[in-house]
Amino acid sequence: EEYVDIQSDTHNRYNPLLGEWVKISPHRTKRPWNGQVEKQPVEVRPTYDASCYLCPKNARSKGQVNPDYADTFVFQNDFSSLLETTESGSLDEGPNGLLRAKSEKGICKVICFSPRHDLTLAKMAINEIEKVLTVWAEQYKELGEKPFINHVQIFENREAIMGCSNPHPHSQIWAEEIIPDIPARELENQRTYFETHNTAMLLEYAQYEKQKNERVFASNDDFIAVVPFWAVWPYEALILPLQRGITDIGTLTNGEKTNLASLMKEVGIRYDNLFETSFPYSMGIHQKPTDGKDYPGCIMHIHYFPPLLRSATVKKFMVGYEMLAMPQRDITAEGAAKTLCSVSPIHYTEKE
Amino acid sequence: EEYVDIQSDTHNRYNPLLGEWVKISPHRTKRPWNGQVEKQPVEVRPTYDASCYLCPKNARSKGQVNPDYADTFVFQNDFSSLLETTESGSLDEGPNGLLRAKSEKGICKVICFSPRHDLTLAKMAINEIEKVLTVWAEQYKELGEKPFINHVQIFENREAIMGCSNPHPHSQIWAEEIIPDIPARELENQRTYFETHNTAMLLEYAQYEKQKNERVFASNDDFIAVVPFWAVWPYEALILPLQRGITDIGTLTNGEKTNLASLMKEVGIRYDNLFETSFPYSMGIHQKPTDGKDYPGCIMHIHYFPPLLRSATVKKFMVGYEMLAMPQRDITAEGAAKTLCSVSPIHYTEKE
Ligand SMILES: O=P(O)(O)O[C@H]1O[C@H](CO)[C@@H](O)[C@H](O)[C@H]1O
Ligand SMILES: O=P(O)(O)O[C@H]1O[C@H](CO)[C@@H](O)[C@H](O)[C@H]1O
Repeated sequence: EEYVDIQSDTHNRYNPLLGEWVKISPHRTKRPWNGQVEKQPVEVRPTYDASCYLCPKNARSKGQVNPDYADTFVFQNDFSSLLETTESGSLDEGPNGLLRAKSEKGICKVICFSPRHDLTLAKMAINEIEKVLTVWAEQYKELGEKPFINHVQIFENREAIMGCSNPHPHSQIWAEEIIPDIPARELENQRTYFETHNTAMLLEYAQYEKQKNERVFASNDDFIAVVPFWAVWPYEALILPLQRGITDIGTLTNGEKTNLASLMKEVGIRYDNLFETSFPYSMGIHQKPTDGKDYPGCIMHIHYFPPLLRSATVKKFMVGYEMLAMPQRDITAEGAAKTLCSVSPIHYTEKE
Repeated sequence: EEYVDIQSDTHNRYNPLLGEWVKISPHRTKRPWNGQVEKQPVEVRPTYDASCYLCPKNARSKGQVNPDYADTFVFQNDFSSLLETTESGSLDEGPNGLLRAKSEKGICKVICFSPRHDLTLAKMAINEIEKVLTVWAEQYKELGEKPFINHVQIFENREAIMGCSNPHPHSQIWAEEIIPDIPARELENQRTYFETHNTAMLLEYAQYEKQKNERVFASNDDFIAVVPFWAVWPYEALILPLQRGITDIGTLTNGEKTNLASLMKEVGIRYDNLFETSFPYSMGIHQKPTDGKDYPGCIMHIHYFPPLLRSATVKKFMVGYEMLAMPQRDITAEGAAKTLCSVSPIHYTEKE
């Protein structure tokens, strides 16, 4: 069998983390686009917005008033998907128990990154991002210690196109009883790899990518940012530790925290510079569950899932074939990484 | 353990077809929405559009001219993701073969439903929809007979919000060598169920839902349309056979074809009537692969994945937690089915 030309032939790539495939059709980038065009994100935002329910001293929708906070601010989500008060119960109905349900307890929180309404991680100082990492680590530990919390999902939705209804820089945490399916699959595949090869999959992968230098677009001593070989979204990225098997955000050294903050800033800047826009994405941390069990091979990593494809207003649609069969992309991971390397590491709004 | 109150408590429901869970937070429907609002689809379309590359006698982007077709029209996609000419090749790179790729051959087609630019399945006559089913069946057989085609995915993307760049009524077919991950998982779960219970999962499920009559919103002698217990999208639906284990669209009797066409029309009408809009969705058929192998328990079914949540312009965003952890929804499947039952079975544009 021949070597596949992954820069021009249609091919499928294997995602060893999820154990599934993604289809790449590089020749298809020539397709014209007459479809939906998104609104441009608003570029100039005020430092304080009187109508924003996340700005300091403002009232939220249920009447609580935010403190006059100086850096980060954490509160319980006013419209939590998961509640601490849910009672345990289950349902098993229909032929051979085809209809199964189980109630679930949990806690949902909101973490404001800054009192400044107009900032984003890309525009914040590295030491300010470090404070965000510290709060995430505290929350991960504090929530994880509760006996009914076994998984802590930290994530950020950025811009309206990603379902974010407030541009004030913030993230969410959904902490819960179960290990949801996606992290469960990743943990299982990491465990199998570890048991088979006696080494952590993502650490090996990070070191290989660093040396190969074809898909890495930002890095420092402790971490790399890479468009993974198996990326689904056009400019999808993964932040991975490079030196040691970091399992969770609670175990970062101070040096690692600084380097992670600095790399997250650079990823944000390169993203924004790509189309000179406030780049939308969902971002989130996958790390060790808090159920006290062993997770051999589990490496903390950060996923970035950004929807834009061609410009600030043309996104990739994951519809039709993608919803029914498997993910599909046009530009290659290598092409995307090259573009992310080629943009300036200085934020476009800061060029004088 | 208690019985879970699935109309008000946060709970997870099991999807036995995909083998994964979906989170339901019914109390969360009270959440206000200040986020992104979509454009309304254009309501009045001409019967013929000179700039449409799917209308009869018009030229397509690469210069070919469409025939003056009378009902359906099939052609090879001008920007096919899969090509017949791709040569076989593979890649196995990096530590323990972490980077794996395999080239893939295939054929992508476009099927116009009607020469009329302004129609949709919901507005077409039942006998016209039957002709679409006939063409799909012919394509399924013709493509499936090719030795390198093992899976035939028929699907329709409707409206700009679903990545559809042309409102002319049409569907696509992506036919290929591999069985993609999503149908592969569904086939595997149907097989296991069949081997364990000696009966087809989806046939048992359809009969249970028909009798229970809580999530079924349209039906006839041969088929039901149901918001599945494990629905992810707000008004997600599944069309299932009711009487016999139909494995694929190629084996429909004439009577079944008429009943399927009539049910598809009703689903389309109820969808459009929900928000009095041309309801966007991705729809597709899962059926028996064409690799000649045995698929015990495999039942043909049609998935509808519509994004709208609250109105013609407010959709559900599958972002953040959903991309990183698991799907989540607010309204229950039962509530969605009740709403779909309550709307008129006559298209809102046809009320005098
Ligand atoms: O083939 P089209 O209509 O140009 O494109 C649309 O459907 C494809 C298959 O579902 C998707 O891959 C594209 O993202 C979408 O925009
Ligand atoms: O919680 P928010 O910001 O109101 O809502 C947003 O994020 C949630 C978690 O990712 C999603 O379930 C919602 O669909 C999305 O609009």
